[in-house]
Amino acid sequence: MKISVLGVASTKFGELWGKSLQDLMAEAQLAALKDASLQPSEVQAIFVGNMLAEKFEGQAHLGAMASQNLNLNVPSLRIECACASGGAAIAAGVRAILSGMHEVVMVIGAEKMTDVPTPMITSALMGAALYQTEHFAGATFPSLFALVTRLYMQKYGLTQEQLASVSIKNHFNATLNPLAQFSKKITLDDVLQSPIVADPLRLIDCSPVSDGSCAMIISSYDYAKKIENTGINIIATGMGTDALDLASRDEWTSFKATKIAAEQAYRMAGIEPKDIDIAEVHDAFSLSEIIALEDLEFFAPGTAGVASILGKTALTGYIPINSSGGLKAKGHPVGASGLSQAVEIVNQLRGVCGARQAKSPKIGLTHSMGGVGTTSVVHIFEKE
Amino acid sequence: MKISVLGVASTKFGELWGKSLQDLMAEAQLAALKDASLQPSEVQAIFVGNMLAEKFEGQAHLGAMASQNLNLNVPSLRIECACASGGAAIAAGVRAILSGMHEVVMVIGAEKMTDVPTPMITSALMGAALYQTEHFAGATFPSLFALVTRLYMQKYGLTQEQLASVSIKNHFNATLNPLAQFSKKITLDDVLQSPIVADPLRLIDCSPVSDGSCAMIISSYDYAKKIENTGINIIATGMGTDALDLASRDEWTSFKATKIAAEQAYRMAGIEPKDIDIAEVHDAFSLSEIIALEDLEFFAPGTAGVASILGKTALTGYIPINSSGGLKAKGHPVGASGLSQAVEIVNQLRGVCGARQAKSPKIGLTHSMGGVGTTSVVHIFEKE
Repeated sequence: MKISVLGVASTKFGELWGKSLQDLMAEAQLAALKDASLQPSEVQAIFVGNMLAEKFEGQAHLGAMASQNLNLNVPSLRIECACASGGAAIAAGVRAILSGMHEVVMVIGAEKMTDVPTPMITSALMGAALYQTEHFAGATFPSLFALVTRLYMQKYGLTQEQLASVSIKNHFNATLNPLAQFSKKITLDDVLQSPIVADPLRLIDCSPVSDGSCAMIISSYDYAKKIENTGINIIATGMGTDALDLASRDEWTSFKATKIAAEQAYRMAGIEPKDIDIAEVHDAFSLSEIIALEDLEFFAPGTAGVASILGKTALTGYIPINSSGGLKAKGHPVGASGLSQAVEIVNQLRGVCGARQAKSPKIGLTHSMGGVGTTSVVHIFEKE
Repeated sequence: MKISVLGVASTKFGELWGKSLQDLMAEAQLAALKDASLQPSEVQAIFVGNMLAEKFEGQAHLGAMASQNLNLNVPSLRIECACASGGAAIAAGVRAILSGMHEVVMVIGAEKMTDVPTPMITSALMGAALYQTEHFAGATFPSLFALVTRLYMQKYGLTQEQLASVSIKNHFNATLNPLAQFSKKITLDDVLQSPIVADPLRLIDCSPVSDGSCAMIISSYDYAKKIENTGINIIATGMGTDALDLASRDEWTSFKATKIAAEQAYRMAGIEPKDIDIAEVHDAFSLSEIIALEDLEFFAPGTAGVASILGKTALTGYIPINSSGGLKAKGHPVGASGLSQAVEIVNQLRGVCGARQAKSPKIGLTHSMGGVGTTSVVHIFEKE
């Protein structure tokens, strides 16, 4: 598989009260077109990842909105897989190109979350779990991840300091990313003194509520050659799902959906985990990053916390993880997060990330997750 | 293009208070597998069309739910294009097969609408239009369609009787469909004496609020040959979009999105409108059916109302339209409606529709719409 990335773009992430969801989408769409040196009329289909606009803004039908933003009439649809919506939209875009029905497609991720009160957001995000059991019983995502974190600590001896090292690294990386929501370096003390949200998770172990949008334009490799815009290719796409509710799972400290998605992607790309030079993984909670690093086979089960505190996932480490700042510090507008990972990896492979540029990565990976490991989408990007 | 339909199934449509959305999805999924003589493990990916579950039930992530229902871990995602969600899910399933990534995929449409009060439903459905102008200004879908209907009447001289003939036919057809929400024959008097909802639209010009789910299993033609389940193929898929808000359109009495979708589909199938033997078209309001018949080029602009009252679209007419009873009388669980059309056409081509069976149709068409002509999806099915 070889799908070319023609252009990428991201808005600033954060509390963007002056801009509507449509504004944010249009901003990312136009910037991605500019990055690809394409006219809107060259886009043949649009896939929009979004989770919450119906609930928060009464606005569905975002595919048509994205098409209208460019004054087009092309096939356009919204993809929803909770917080993996952006990753799933990329996978849908890839399928559309491979189908031979479209040569150039635009994939967008967008979310506007900061206009509503936090309890509404917490409740809406529980739509990613099983309503009838978990939501109805009063569970929240921090509480579910706290359960998983407690179990992981018990099983592998993960310390609070190792856990905190994930956020410290990601906040540091975000200080180097002008589009990130947070630009403040944090210390171990900051994490350990932050309020407990759901024991053992503290405030700084949890990703924020954010607004933002990203877009990516992809095409067949032949089309990219024709317009002389080759360079970065998507060489694999993998996706897996698991039970919506934790109670239906045998295993809590590793996510089957990620393992399935990763296995598919590695097989499709014909590479091994050690071949990945850089990755953006789903770090909605500190432990999500640790589990992702193990499920993606960068580190053995139970060892990613130690690797993290030893700096192996830092910008200059063995494998830089979340150089963008990740969901934790760059921000987590849920529908946009999967796309945002792709934007970062493409820019890292292009070598244009400035102060946070990793050392000449050739192969990068993105890992987007919805629910407590319920949906996982993995993409692998390669520099020619 | 030749994608095989291995199996189809539909639940009863109506006010199904005893069943949850998940129950309905599982029922349709298992029945479609039975119809296809397949095991769940043979399904390689799942596409779920749904619009309203997040808003009404706090339940997103229906792709994963559908996968969990079959105890699978396959790529599964939700597609939302307002009331065209089911049609768009079929198109996504078709692309997935054409991509070569999956041989057998399940497409589901599902909606549970009758558990919430009508004002909530009316408001939620306005998510299909543009919130910032139309919804915010107090417009509802009946009111927007009333505007279009008034204009059409003025332009082409359509009478209230011609308009009513659409509902009368569809209600008659529904009396022959055991899965339909309504099974009562209605007369012209019934329509003309029903309350005005938004002048000139009366209650019986509007489709109902419904629960229901449908599923379809499709595969590559080669796979269908291998398991000896050829017979019905999807030979074309077309999709178009237009502005979310009416104010941004030049033309109100014809929908550009449908014309684009139809043109793509006819070209892909290599056929002309006159080659279609039977069709299910989007009749959320009586006028939607009339405009669809013209945009699909079954009748010339301004003539479908006369054709309808002359019986040309009846079961025994020139081209039977909405033999199932249509959204009007079979019911309109919005995410399921596009799938439901496919179920009817497949069963008509198989010749198993009993009392409502049309005379040996060989080629059938489905037309699913979201918003006031904003998204249109057209599929063409052929009997081998």
